[in-house]
Amino acid sequence: MTTENASGHGFKEALYEVIFGYESRAGRIFDLGLIIMIMVSVIAVVLDSVGAFHLRHGELLSSLEWFFTIAFTIEYILRIYSSPHPRGYIFSFYGLIDLLSILPTYIAFLFPQSVYLIVVRVLRVLRIFRILKLFRYIGEANVLFQALVNARRKIFVFLFCVLTLIVIFGTLMFVVEGPANGFTSIPRSMYWAIVTVTTVGYGDISPHTALGQLIAGLAMICGYAIIAVPTGIVGVEIMNEFQRQGPITAETVHKVCNNCNLSQHDPDASYCKRCGTII
Amino acid sequence: MTTENASGHGFKEALYEVIFGYESRAGRIFDLGLIIMIMVSVIAVVLDSVGAFHLRHGELLSSLEWFFTIAFTIEYILRIYSSPHPRGYIFSFYGLIDLLSILPTYIAFLFPQSVYLIVVRVLRVLRIFRILKLFRYIGEANVLFQALVNARRKIFVFLFCVLTLIVIFGTLMFVVEGPANGFTSIPRSMYWAIVTVTTVGYGDISPHTALGQLIAGLAMICGYAIIAVPTGIVGVEIMNEFQRQGPITAETVHKVCNNCNLSQHDPDASYCKRCGTII
Amino acid sequence: MTTENASGHGFKEALYEVIFGYESRAGRIFDLGLIIMIMVSVIAVVLDSVGAFHLRHGELLSSLEWFFTIAFTIEYILRIYSSPHPRGYIFSFYGLIDLLSILPTYIAFLFPQSVYLIVVRVLRVLRIFRILKLFRYIGEANVLFQALVNARRKIFVFLFCVLTLIVIFGTLMFVVEGPANGFTSIPRSMYWAIVTVTTVGYGDISPHTALGQLIAGLAMICGYAIIAVPTGIVGVEIMNEFQRQGPITAETVHKVCNNCNLSQHDPDASYCKRCGTII
Amino acid sequence: MTTENASGHGFKEALYEVIFGYESRAGRIFDLGLIIMIMVSVIAVVLDSVGAFHLRHGELLSSLEWFFTIAFTIEYILRIYSSPHPRGYIFSFYGLIDLLSILPTYIAFLFPQSVYLIVVRVLRVLRIFRILKLFRYIGEANVLFQALVNARRKIFVFLFCVLTLIVIFGTLMFVVEGPANGFTSIPRSMYWAIVTVTTVGYGDISPHTALGQLIAGLAMICGYAIIAVPTGIVGVEIMNEFQRQGPITAETVHKVCNNCNLSQHDPDASYCKRCGTII
Repeated sequence: MTTENASGHGFKEALYEVIFGYESRAGRIFDLGLIIMIMVSVIAVVLDSVGAFHLRHGELLSSLEWFFTIAFTIEYILRIYSSPHPRGYIFSFYGLIDLLSILPTYIAFLFPQSVYLIVVRVLRVLRIFRILKLFRYIGEANVLFQALVNARRKIFVFLFCVLTLIVIFGTLMFVVEGPANGFTSIPRSMYWAIVTVTTVGYGDISPHTALGQLIAGLAMICGYAIIAVPTGIVGVEIMNEFQRQGPITAETVHKVCNNCNLSQHDPDASYCKRCGTII
Repeated sequence: MTTENASGHGFKEALYEVIFGYESRAGRIFDLGLIIMIMVSVIAVVLDSVGAFHLRHGELLSSLEWFFTIAFTIEYILRIYSSPHPRGYIFSFYGLIDLLSILPTYIAFLFPQSVYLIVVRVLRVLRIFRILKLFRYIGEANVLFQALVNARRKIFVFLFCVLTLIVIFGTLMFVVEGPANGFTSIPRSMYWAIVTVTTVGYGDISPHTALGQLIAGLAMICGYAIIAVPTGIVGVEIMNEFQRQGPITAETVHKVCNNCNLSQHDPDASYCKRCGTII
Repeated sequence: MTTENASGHGFKEALYEVIFGYESRAGRIFDLGLIIMIMVSVIAVVLDSVGAFHLRHGELLSSLEWFFTIAFTIEYILRIYSSPHPRGYIFSFYGLIDLLSILPTYIAFLFPQSVYLIVVRVLRVLRIFRILKLFRYIGEANVLFQALVNARRKIFVFLFCVLTLIVIFGTLMFVVEGPANGFTSIPRSMYWAIVTVTTVGYGDISPHTALGQLIAGLAMICGYAIIAVPTGIVGVEIMNEFQRQGPITAETVHKVCNNCNLSQHDPDASYCKRCGTII
Repeated sequence: MTTENASGHGFKEALYEVIFGYESRAGRIFDLGLIIMIMVSVIAVVLDSVGAFHLRHGELLSSLEWFFTIAFTIEYILRIYSSPHPRGYIFSFYGLIDLLSILPTYIAFLFPQSVYLIVVRVLRVLRIFRILKLFRYIGEANVLFQALVNARRKIFVFLFCVLTLIVIFGTLMFVVEGPANGFTSIPRSMYWAIVTVTTVGYGDISPHTALGQLIAGLAMICGYAIIAVPTGIVGVEIMNEFQRQGPITAETVHKVCNNCNLSQHDPDASYCKRCGTII
């Protein structure tokens, strides 16, 4: 009995090593196979949306989609089963993505269009950084991510000011140009303001009066100049993060929790501070 | 008599604490309620501009607008009444915004379209940084603001050169392309030049002759390259400001005048250097 | 005789002080008046290009134009006459601009359209930095200008690579999309490539085939990513220049030659190193 | 026999000096002549694509093209013949470009349209940096190139995230807007997403529903904000590279292999670490 228990436990641990781990050969092969399957599955959905492909290979693509969805569902159940801290996994970033990437196929019974939303699976490919870990990519990604986290308050302040600008320019143009020139409502004018301030400039709505063009010109120069602000913020934060983290070594990179993918652990941590798994 | 006077004075001071302050619980609740009202009021105006909403809920939205305008008018009067330095408040940035955000509804008796301009109220929401003060946002906003202030001369020089470029490219295209291709006047060509140099590119006016396309190409590469200048300026200034201000602490953050919102006080200041209010 | 000579010489020197100088009161008034005249003259040309204005005020605007051209011609002759080093003035940046800003009116006898080119006068307004000198603007402009001069080789390398990209993407799209989709020739495809790589995106020419859209997508991501290069270059150079120049003081700012406007003099220079005028 | 051998060897070496070298006068003249020929050849192809030119000068342009192709073919054979390490040259960046720039004319017997692809010759002009070497341009180009090489992992991470964003926004818009509004398939929606996120904004496909415009607005603000990331990355790397390389001197610049153009040699290297040629 104890033996069976132990072997059951051993099986669960071995499964954990294969599914969550990347240190063993089996774990790396599993991860690589998974990423290939995700890629194929996403490409199948993308191609299925093209009329010509749907007509010719609709049956095949539909079967593929079901095959992958069932495979990923089994994988999801096995992940929960083998995880030492299931709750930590389920509510982690990757856990939620794993769930989201199988739901659309089932929901499509009710809302057929939602089937395309399984491209959210593409987010699962972000796991590729785990496999590439040995090549220092995850360390580099961490520098970028940490820089953005440090800059979050400044970015929030910046976005807040941009939104204020958009509301004001949108309303101003609604009053100046009016429905006759395509500015049919303030929300639509705000859409125009976003298109203009971000320098996208579709041209589906554009000012026709002289005053409107003057205000539009101001909005453009505003948008053109304030892009300097987030650039400056992020640049400074990346530089700071660069100097703080020092050279990225194998040790700093390996400190990532397999279970919930948290990566900001202290150098001497042995357990994940979020879900308690041994690192 | 002295008692009544004192209690009158006490009432004024208590009012000041609630309306201008954010240290007491009542003050924070007042500010939070105010921001919610501003938000609702702005959303009401935005929705009212949409034809379908106006037809169905026009009456309600109109009443809401009047309710909020009257409420904000009373608030404005109370602010002037309770402020220890009314003049300092009235001519401060927020004082002017507060006035501007109630005027359009009254002016709408004369110019109906101006009613939409009450979205200027959205600027009042910038007060949110006051409430978020405890969360260091105002400190971060200060770094950005101070960096822009320090860079003002360089930004002025930059904008001056951009405007010169726009005048010259605009005239050149007017001469080269002419009214037949949509460049009907120099002001209109200058509008095209702004759209092009800022890389917005609506496409409502675009060059048709080979020479015009060559000049347009030059204008685009100019615009594409010179965006590097403000970005460089602001980046350097943010970095300098970062190093000068040091870590943002509760103390440096709390040195903001409640009455006129001036925030660049010396660490040992006890009175606002602009309006004399006790900090 | 000597007296007359001396007074003649004295008159020339006094004229030089007024026209080129900005230290005396008369010199500052002359410069300010000049800038106002330039502004009015440019605005007159811009307004004259608008059909409605031309019909109503064509006579007046035409007279104004002749008045300003004659005034600027007299000023140009006086500048040459009073300059201690006429050759140094004539071939300096401002000397050439001064000549260019009066020529178009005269050339308009032969080519009527060229009359609009007198907006090149707007470049004369750059003298405004001379008047603003006391306010440190010229020092800031110098930092920017010097940063761009230092970065010139990197910017040249960058533009060279961008041009290479444009030639290759342009040809590729000409082969892939062909004349049927608007890509009628390689020069026109290169125009499209510039519009796309600089993220302007008029939409007057856009890819219609799937392969063309794929290549266009690559061109866009290229253009989107490489903008980072000039930004990085200029940012670093501005920072370097910032650290080298130290605080901008009245002394460093005043070392500008009145005659030819050269500004990069050594702190102990007494004569302009380009034209020999006393600084 | 030995004499003939030696002279044969001497001829080969002299040829190598002229074709690959730039130290001797003959070598510099050869390189300059080559670049002029490349330029003329590329301009000929570009002009030939313009209908009017093709009709009038088609014969001449066609002859020019053959002349240049044969000349470049002979040059290519001589390069292989005279190179001390032919394999090193053939598989170097410039060796492949040299081959690619003669192939299209021959392939055009089978696929006529491919003839335009000889503009790939424009890449050969990058050799110009070799001639400009004395003017420190190559050193500056190296700083930029090395900065991009150092930033390659971060740029890869960034592009990966941008692609993920594009897949998700593309699918979302396909589901929300649908074929009726121009979003006929997911690949086409992804094309729209690239056009939007990179702020190009052609306007050939644009959202028409309110929800679609909201999502498009989010995509734009995303694209507008994340441009800050590569800019920050490259800026920091350029600065680091700047500080590491120190002043660019003639010595550091001359350490480039003539045979395969590898330039990252140690200061004391005497042989190219890639192909073994004496530097």
